[in-house]
Amino acid sequence: MSSRHDFIRALRREPVTRRPVWLMRQAGRYLPEYRALRQHAGGFLDLLKNPDNACEVTLQPVRRFDLDAAILFADILTIPDAMGLGLEFVAGRGPLFRRSISRLTEARALPVPDPQTDLAYVLDTVKIVTQELDGRLPLIGFAGGPWTLAAYMLEGGGGAREFPRARAVVNAQPELVEVLAAKLVPATIAYLLAQARAGAEALMLFESWAGLLAPEGFRRHVLAPLEEIVTVVKADPAAQDKPMILFAKGAGQHAAALGGLGAEALGVDWTVSLADVRRATNNHVALQGNLDPAALLAPEDALRAAVRAVIADFGPGPGHVFNLGHGVTPDVDPERVGALVDEVHGAPV
Amino acid sequence: MSSRHDFIRALRREPVTRRPVWLMRQAGRYLPEYRALRQHAGGFLDLLKNPDNACEVTLQPVRRFDLDAAILFADILTIPDAMGLGLEFVAGRGPLFRRSISRLTEARALPVPDPQTDLAYVLDTVKIVTQELDGRLPLIGFAGGPWTLAAYMLEGGGGAREFPRARAVVNAQPELVEVLAAKLVPATIAYLLAQARAGAEALMLFESWAGLLAPEGFRRHVLAPLEEIVTVVKADPAAQDKPMILFAKGAGQHAAALGGLGAEALGVDWTVSLADVRRATNNHVALQGNLDPAALLAPEDALRAAVRAVIADFGPGPGHVFNLGHGVTPDVDPERVGALVDEVHGAPV
Repeated sequence: MSSRHDFIRALRREPVTRRPVWLMRQAGRYLPEYRALRQHAGGFLDLLKNPDNACEVTLQPVRRFDLDAAILFADILTIPDAMGLGLEFVAGRGPLFRRSISRLTEARALPVPDPQTDLAYVLDTVKIVTQELDGRLPLIGFAGGPWTLAAYMLEGGGGAREFPRARAVVNAQPELVEVLAAKLVPATIAYLLAQARAGAEALMLFESWAGLLAPEGFRRHVLAPLEEIVTVVKADPAAQDKPMILFAKGAGQHAAALGGLGAEALGVDWTVSLADVRRATNNHVALQGNLDPAALLAPEDALRAAVRAVIADFGPGPGHVFNLGHGVTPDVDPERVGALVDEVHGAPV
Repeated sequence: MSSRHDFIRALRREPVTRRPVWLMRQAGRYLPEYRALRQHAGGFLDLLKNPDNACEVTLQPVRRFDLDAAILFADILTIPDAMGLGLEFVAGRGPLFRRSISRLTEARALPVPDPQTDLAYVLDTVKIVTQELDGRLPLIGFAGGPWTLAAYMLEGGGGAREFPRARAVVNAQPELVEVLAAKLVPATIAYLLAQARAGAEALMLFESWAGLLAPEGFRRHVLAPLEEIVTVVKADPAAQDKPMILFAKGAGQHAAALGGLGAEALGVDWTVSLADVRRATNNHVALQGNLDPAALLAPEDALRAAVRAVIADFGPGPGHVFNLGHGVTPDVDPERVGALVDEVHGAPV
């Protein structure tokens, strides 16, 4: 049970027996068993919305590697999908919605999904995974951050590099983003609490597109909604002892502000130094990260050296969960993931 | 002649009569006169490589708006094109090279272009524009940063969001990036000096993809080559009195290091606060930026308020050249650019 304790303890900045490690998108296309199951199941959405399949995908990487946590297999866009926007995955274009939002009246008319009914497939997955893990490893539940969800909802069709429509709305009609947030924040709170009640032991928020915003927009559309979510979730008995992790990609310059929102840990992308983020946050939060995912494409020696460099950058003391700075890419050789995990666990704590 | 002096004076952090302004990609598809000329000329490359056309495009925005500088109409990828990689622009995929580099021997075999012969079309454009401007406005010459050029050369085909092949090379074979830099740095120095001799009065380097790198890669592949370029260019009599501007997009966390390379000014993208960058650079360099380009899609009142917010963020004192945080997008109404320029010039200095 040491692994189990190490992950949660590191998030609380308590001493650990070994440095815990898990990887964003550790369940995914780089694993042959994932590709086999996906082919058998149909499309990505069929995998996602079938709890038995989603459970199997969640468990695949923790069976193969000595990871310190499992993360729920789900998508960050489940909430807008449950609001009726129609999530689709089109090859080469990324996720997109059949319906996009461009008017205040449309945003005001959106329902706030009830996770028990509208997102039951996710909660069922959490329950089955928790049962299967049987206390051996903690399960991380998660949700997309309100700004990132709003960006997809405003943009509609996928494939746009920098969300031009969503950013135009931020500048021309910021109240539309706030009306969306007024729906997304309570929906996300209910969703995370439901995951906690169903068995998730840590909760993570992914603001994958935080880096698109100017500082004022970041305060208004990222920091304020995240703070509300963290405050309400942490005040609930179902989640008050479950550590929260905030990952805002491309927002290294905002580390101090993110570190003050009340979450136990920050996820850090690979473009910033962990030492700098520790300094900026006065060492008051745990950090999760931040190896460049492309390091998994290097020869094993170079990969192991890069792992050690991240650990050295973090420096001494507790509060580090090793991870990538973004997700595992499909072209990674699974053996490299094994070498990464081995190198992390072999490093001094 | 006040505008002329204001732009150069602001880059030197000297007092100005009014705050100078120009916009990245001020010559471009949002202008009907540009679209007309491009249709008439053939493709983008025909516009680029014909000095009369390139001169006309350079001058279009300064005829229409009260801008304080013209910027050479050229592409950041002219140097690798002159090395023989075969630049192409494919609709919807961005720039790409017919030939990509994947081996050390290929990189070592690349020629260092002589700007006088291999990039004569650019120098001819600089000369014609300088003649046409006749001292009324300064012309900015520019080049792509070595890392950004290397990223395109390693990636080959365009359309990849985060340059997976180039980033894999950074991790697996960093010496290949350095061999490319050993070609690109002297080529860029010769190219910028030739532009200065042909009449450019300020020189800008665009590291558009600086934000892809981890801190160690940033030091090795962005900071070191830029420092060499700035040092050698500034030591040459042809350019020693011509201010240099470094724009590293997505690298706000590295402002202090960038500010110490010897260039007079930093370009700043829209995701960071100018006040923070001033603090990080101890107010030792001028700053150019940093309105979110999407603000040009807002109603005029909101645009003008956003312009004032950027100016307020910079704060009092000299050393600010107003600009966007990235290029003008094709969907912008030219009248908005006029309003932006008017608002900047009306602000107190």
